[in-house]
Amino acid sequence: MEKRPLILISNDDGYHAKGINSLVDMVRDLGDVIVCAPERARSGFACAFSATAPLTLKLRRKMEEVEVWSCNGTPVDCVKMALAELCPRKPDLVIGGINHGDNASVNTHYSGTMGVTMEGCMKYIPSVAFSICDYRDDADFEPLRPYVRKMVQRMLNEGLPRGICLNINFPLVAEYQGIKVCRMAFGTWGNEVTRCHHPRGYDYWWMVGTYTNDEPDAEDTDNWALQHGYIAITPTQMDVTAHQMIEQMKDWEQ
Amino acid sequence: MEKRPLILISNDDGYHAKGINSLVDMVRDLGDVIVCAPERARSGFACAFSATAPLTLKLRRKMEEVEVWSCNGTPVDCVKMALAELCPRKPDLVIGGINHGDNASVNTHYSGTMGVTMEGCMKYIPSVAFSICDYRDDADFEPLRPYVRKMVQRMLNEGLPRGICLNINFPLVAEYQGIKVCRMAFGTWGNEVTRCHHPRGYDYWWMVGTYTNDEPDAEDTDNWALQHGYIAITPTQMDVTAHQMIEQMKDWEQ
Repeated sequence: MEKRPLILISNDDGYHAKGINSLVDMVRDLGDVIVCAPERARSGFACAFSATAPLTLKLRRKMEEVEVWSCNGTPVDCVKMALAELCPRKPDLVIGGINHGDNASVNTHYSGTMGVTMEGCMKYIPSVAFSICDYRDDADFEPLRPYVRKMVQRMLNEGLPRGICLNINFPLVAEYQGIKVCRMAFGTWGNEVTRCHHPRGYDYWWMVGTYTNDEPDAEDTDNWALQHGYIAITPTQMDVTAHQMIEQMKDWEQ
Repeated sequence: MEKRPLILISNDDGYHAKGINSLVDMVRDLGDVIVCAPERARSGFACAFSATAPLTLKLRRKMEEVEVWSCNGTPVDCVKMALAELCPRKPDLVIGGINHGDNASVNTHYSGTMGVTMEGCMKYIPSVAFSICDYRDDADFEPLRPYVRKMVQRMLNEGLPRGICLNINFPLVAEYQGIKVCRMAFGTWGNEVTRCHHPRGYDYWWMVGTYTNDEPDAEDTDNWALQHGYIAITPTQMDVTAHQMIEQMKDWEQ
């Protein structure tokens, strides 16, 4: 008998978040599923891992055949711990999400959900991040179900090239206009810190910020797709070399 | 009179580390220098920022004209806070480092020093990371001085294209063989967690690991350069789109 594919799921919103539990429900019949996710919300943790803190694991629940573990570390820690200690074999797919909030454009670099996906990719496992443009705790993930199932099935069937993962964002619209395979938009966060005054007499700051799409007319970007009601698939790579610069910079070798 | 260039310096080893203080000493006469670095070591923090924790700043010392600030957040928080609250104008250069330990290959994704540099890059400021292949607290940074000064001066004169930054690693050798402009090697971390037993009766894990260069014969990589005594300059980009996949994946739009 052929083995069922093994799917490892994590996120950055925490094991208890609606998004990850919706995801498990969508894909649980497509393979054996293991969940290992942060024990508390870890948004904005990027590819951070715990170089100096001791890590712990807790089995939170077993839903039929799906074990849900939490780890006290970062999203990347969750993947590393699951691969080393929880997975009976190398997973066939790593999924991050479903994230409450979009991970398009430069958010790719900050996102813990993309940290999960990049970590899977760095282990040469086909990996994907799913996110919805809705930050609410009770966001409705049901409209994503047929798309997520089809995309996961496709990745299980076909895999992905080594070093390539997928960053898939769903807009918050009544009806999807379609799907676009796109590139990451260039955009910038501004007004990122807000100063407050502590009753004990010192200043502190909250990180907030407003995002600007720096190329709003570029129709081939993830930002454009999402703004126009399309599901955005951004093929993403772990190789961040600016290859086109290598030849240009030859005189730096002098 | 022309304004002196403004150089913003941060790291992930903390404001007190030898590497960042050596760097300040190397470049302080090349421009106005502001330091804002983590108040404690934040190795492995990648592009993480503090989405939910309040941030504080402390002026630690003023060395002649150089203010050294610490922030309780991540390396990326340090850059965001410095840009918003400390810099009198937009910096001409953001420098991460000098890091105690290499940031080649996939370490690029985990490194807080590269987080600093990527954050500068995402703000369209010419940005560079310097690292040495020596984890010791008392690593000797003096051999780097002429190279760091020349490279910083060059970036101040010429800038860098938008969305491109530099990841520069120095090997630990008696004499440099030269400089190589290279690409990021594909490599993998394995055996990443070590299980220990707590006296209270539960298990916990430390993140350690061993690195394997997956393409040891590729002479155009950062790993190869460093292993052969060369200073490795890896031009790095914030755009992580796998552009070559976009056309191939058109049928995902069906």
